Amino acid sequence: MIEATIGLMRSSGLSGAGINDIVRESGAPKGSVYHFFPNGKVQIVSEALESYSEKVLTFVDQALASKHAPADKIKALFSAFARRVAEGDFQKSCPFGTVSLDLERELEELRVVLETAFSDLKALIAKHFDFGNPRRAQSFAGLVLTTIEGAYIRCRAERSARPFTEAGAWLAELAARGS
Amino acid sequence: MIEATIGLMRSSGLSGAGINDIVRESGAPKGSVYHFFPNGKVQIVSEALESYSEKVLTFVDQALASKHAPADKIKALFSAFARRVAEGDFQKSCPFGTVSLDLERELEELRVVLETAFSDLKALIAKHFDFGNPRRAQSFAGLVLTTIEGAYIRCRAERSARPFTEAGAWLAELAARGS
Repeated sequence: MIEATIGLMRSSGLSGAGINDIVRESGAPKGSVYHFFPNGKVQIVSEALESYSEKVLTFVDQALASKHAPADKIKALFSAFARRVAEGDFQKSCPFGTVSLDLERELEELRVVLETAFSDLKALIAKHFDFGNPRRAQSFAGLVLTTIEGAYIRCRAERSARPFTEAGAWLAELAARGS
Repeated sequence: MIEATIGLMRSSGLSGAGINDIVRESGAPKGSVYHFFPNGKVQIVSEALESYSEKVLTFVDQALASKHAPADKIKALFSAFARRVAEGDFQKSCPFGTVSLDLERELEELRVVLETAFSDLKALIAKHFDFGNPRRAQSFAGLVLTTIEGAYIRCRAERSARPFTEAGAWLAELAARGS
């Protein structure tokens, strides 16, 4: 059910991941949803976001660790995302993005899950860069994260992976200079 | 009805802008929706996105035109977006982003509207920068656009305008160097 929920969120966010959709996609009996997730949709979605977070941290870490020079690390990361978005036929985005843009004020619990996911990702990215001071590395990692989320949007509308490679080239310039 | 549709899309994308929601928010009688928009939801949403596009082009043009030096232009633009997102209490995002992340394959008509909106915005931004060659200015404008869309996501999850000011500072460095 967690995998089905991640898939639905990547396609159409919170609104696409209703209990009925999750039941249909996962093939699990409806009763089992409330057995495993007594708090219903918010609980499934929270756990699915946390599960995705672990996977994307590994994905990002591996891409950044694959190269040594700062500019090469950035290019490797954005190339990996460019491949990822093309493999999903430009229909699958980052669920952190899709769910963030569906947040309502009453979903504070989910907002905190997303904020934590972004914070963890930023900290991981920052560890790969040394800009002379940790605050600058954190800030650069924030820009990398912002750019990844934005590129997912444009790739989907433009049916192209170019927003990732384009952003990667510019951020590589900053990385080469900064560290 | 167009204004109501824009407001709904900025909050929760395509899924939030159903005909019933639009009728409720606009106060218009339900019959009038199909009178003015015989093709229903896709038509209203398309026209609302085009209407928003005109407004955001003016908003971006004014912010960029308010300063002369490239780095100052970027800082002015991202400060303007930081104010905009805070004024919306971090609940209102760019409808291009929210709708892009709700796109389904059968909504090709809407995807083209979004692609055009992004293309127009990129062309407008590029006009304000001279990187020695037009392709580099276009590519930088693409990065600016990507960053704006991504910052809207993070601002919403983090309830903070910092992703805009943070990105503005970095992109101002690139602008200062590049032109």
